[in-house]
Amino acid sequence: MSQYLLIKKVYDTKPVDQTVIVRGWVKSLRQSKKFSFLVLNDGTTQKDLQIIVDLALANYEEVTKLTIGSSVEVEGLVVASQGKQPVEMQARRVHIYCLNGEDYPLQKKETSLEYLREIAHLRSRTTTFSAVFRLRHVLAQATHEYFSNESFTYLHTPIITASDAEGAGEMFRISTLPLDKLPRTDKGAIDFKQDYFGRETFLSVSGQLEAETFAVGGLGRVYTFGPTFRSENSNTARHLSEFWMVEPEAAFNTLEDNALLATGYVKHLIQRAMEQCPDELEFLANRYAPENLKTLEHVLSSPFEVVTYTHAISILEEVSKTHKFDFPVKWGIDLQTEHERFLAEQYFKRPTIVTDYPKDIKAFYMKQNDDGRTVRAMDVLVPGVGELIGGSQREDNYERLVKRMEEMKMDVNNYWWYLDLRKYGSVPHAGFGLGFERAVMYISGMTNIRDVIPFPRTPKNAEF
Amino acid sequence: MSQYLLIKKVYDTKPVDQTVIVRGWVKSLRQSKKFSFLVLNDGTTQKDLQIIVDLALANYEEVTKLTIGSSVEVEGLVVASQGKQPVEMQARRVHIYCLNGEDYPLQKKETSLEYLREIAHLRSRTTTFSAVFRLRHVLAQATHEYFSNESFTYLHTPIITASDAEGAGEMFRISTLPLDKLPRTDKGAIDFKQDYFGRETFLSVSGQLEAETFAVGGLGRVYTFGPTFRSENSNTARHLSEFWMVEPEAAFNTLEDNALLATGYVKHLIQRAMEQCPDELEFLANRYAPENLKTLEHVLSSPFEVVTYTHAISILEEVSKTHKFDFPVKWGIDLQTEHERFLAEQYFKRPTIVTDYPKDIKAFYMKQNDDGRTVRAMDVLVPGVGELIGGSQREDNYERLVKRMEEMKMDVNNYWWYLDLRKYGSVPHAGFGLGFERAVMYISGMTNIRDVIPFPRTPKNAEF
Repeated sequence: MSQYLLIKKVYDTKPVDQTVIVRGWVKSLRQSKKFSFLVLNDGTTQKDLQIIVDLALANYEEVTKLTIGSSVEVEGLVVASQGKQPVEMQARRVHIYCLNGEDYPLQKKETSLEYLREIAHLRSRTTTFSAVFRLRHVLAQATHEYFSNESFTYLHTPIITASDAEGAGEMFRISTLPLDKLPRTDKGAIDFKQDYFGRETFLSVSGQLEAETFAVGGLGRVYTFGPTFRSENSNTARHLSEFWMVEPEAAFNTLEDNALLATGYVKHLIQRAMEQCPDELEFLANRYAPENLKTLEHVLSSPFEVVTYTHAISILEEVSKTHKFDFPVKWGIDLQTEHERFLAEQYFKRPTIVTDYPKDIKAFYMKQNDDGRTVRAMDVLVPGVGELIGGSQREDNYERLVKRMEEMKMDVNNYWWYLDLRKYGSVPHAGFGLGFERAVMYISGMTNIRDVIPFPRTPKNAEF
Repeated sequence: MSQYLLIKKVYDTKPVDQTVIVRGWVKSLRQSKKFSFLVLNDGTTQKDLQIIVDLALANYEEVTKLTIGSSVEVEGLVVASQGKQPVEMQARRVHIYCLNGEDYPLQKKETSLEYLREIAHLRSRTTTFSAVFRLRHVLAQATHEYFSNESFTYLHTPIITASDAEGAGEMFRISTLPLDKLPRTDKGAIDFKQDYFGRETFLSVSGQLEAETFAVGGLGRVYTFGPTFRSENSNTARHLSEFWMVEPEAAFNTLEDNALLATGYVKHLIQRAMEQCPDELEFLANRYAPENLKTLEHVLSSPFEVVTYTHAISILEEVSKTHKFDFPVKWGIDLQTEHERFLAEQYFKRPTIVTDYPKDIKAFYMKQNDDGRTVRAMDVLVPGVGELIGGSQREDNYERLVKRMEEMKMDVNNYWWYLDLRKYGSVPHAGFGLGFERAVMYISGMTNIRDVIPFPRTPKNAEF
């Protein structure tokens, strides 16, 4: 195979006075009388490589006809440059793989984010989206790094499941039954015993319950990082039907430990983004969110605010006297996005951890406080996004957990394995879930969640 | 919160003569006249911590009644030890979180792997499975490390899809349509326009096609690491209905580059496993696969064999004269597991890369050789497992790809976005898919794929 240098490596190693080969796609071409400037990108870095093509080149005519997005190989001499980048290239040979015609959908003119969603298979070719997805990569790596360093074991919990972790019921059914000839039981019900898994199965909404089985008594500290699904009919800029979630679960952790773990994780994400994607963050801030870099620096250097739900409600009630919310505030309500964003953006002006929510608006597995009306839940709210993280200390007392499930009219028998964790080797433990796309939104400054995942799935949309 | 040390940290830092707190679960308890030995594990390391509990301890009686799997907190003095491990602990205080009763399903007696599958929610508490899953963690981290170092960007391709990447048709349907009241079109067909995504959707069998869209013209080099699904009715020790796959895709790579990338990746996995899980590998080898460590060392130090399919067939034909295969060998057949394993285990005695398969047994997207009958495919076969990796250079010529799709009676219109990659900025490119569980099997020496994934999904089984 022929050796060539990634453009990232050209900038990392700066091989001045050496002849190297690069490959990539044309960003732009400018002609002057005696030479042309060919600007190349290969996706491995935000930085383009400027290549000077001299009139004397054998196929100069051909090169001057290069169009945006065409693919080329260039052999040339790397030289120091006075321009924006420290090095550029003088072409000795240009090979054209593929010349794009006039029908190429990505022309130089500004293309809207909405339009680019329609051609999501090509949008990573734009400066915006290649920046977003390199940033997403760095945040994913930073996730694995953070939890590894904290002695968490990465766990692949099942996607196909027969249990409903949240009890919310908004799940996609999975089946191989023939829809035109559904098998029936004697009583006329659909016979799921004949389905592929011998029972009714769905796409998982959370890996938490399975993660708990590995944390308690087994590996101690585990985290998931995998796709989760919601079939709710939400068409907002903050919801996806398929999204990636990070769910750590740690034996012996209390809610306070959980809040510290979440704070450390979010700060680690921001820190790695700033270290490893400075060009990407700068470009995205300049184009979409001018204040973003300042905000991220501020978050990195400040503690997160911690406030109980009861206190947060009293703040919001006070504020309600002068500020109009669409949803009225009183103790017992679930906080709406407008409330969450008000707290994080207007009131505390930083990420805010709200704890100890009313038990009636939270899931069955959360540890009950002695007041009889709240649970050891926490949500982490961030400016611009609202809820980024939801978590809790888990109820580790067998009797209290069963009683709560019965109160909520759940079928206790379905959870025999989950209850076993409170029978055998039970310990205090806690965990949380972070919506990964919301973290990418928050750190990139992008305002529509469809623009931070390669191919978004939303109601009526599963294209590509 | 109270500070405590993970047992991993006790061994990493060896805080001799210091009083520390540890937490974990009881592996065993041995009593002598004046003291007891309490052996504790917390899941963060293969190594147990031995704790000496003196008769003088306030709740000594209680401690002597501790049962396997019970959870405790111990405060004590770390001292140097002459035993198997370099340090042990002298207990000052023992707090019991939860005392297991006699009904605890994991008693000391040897428990079979089959039995443990029935209680998969507890099996990470055994030495075998905590070893397997820590190893799996290290292999996952090594995957991200390898591709990051090679300038690949991690990509989350969609799980829910309307396209069938392999054209194999063995897919799970996803739907929210009410089965008891399926909507119908005027013509009586099921009206998928009314389904959640407005069309028929399935669980993805591969992220390759979407990964190609990001590699060509966009990010250059990408890889996926996510769950994939097959609804085939295979009940073997090597098949799962839900499994994790790693799929790199690189612009400008030829089949030869692809084979080098695959070789480097597999060796990197083995190297990191040996460096970071020596205790786990030793334990698993001793119990399940005595030759395994020697084999891994051999693989690490040898080049992989590379052989064309045509040559492999001639070898197998020659061998057939004296060795009986269940499936007869002749040019044109798809290699069966028995053939694959014979080549890797008996003939070459090392991982073997078979290239240039007949086009009629491979997918539509593989680059066609000039001989008109083979394609630039490769499979990596390893001893004990058979096919670990399947990949190819991709057809990058628009006309040849369309012609092949038409020959295979595919609906070209469904692939408009995939074909765009050959119209705009097309370049040579290649990629492969590695079945992650098969890699874990191969490196751990475990022989049933159900024992290397937390909660296996197979026909008629979606428990937990």
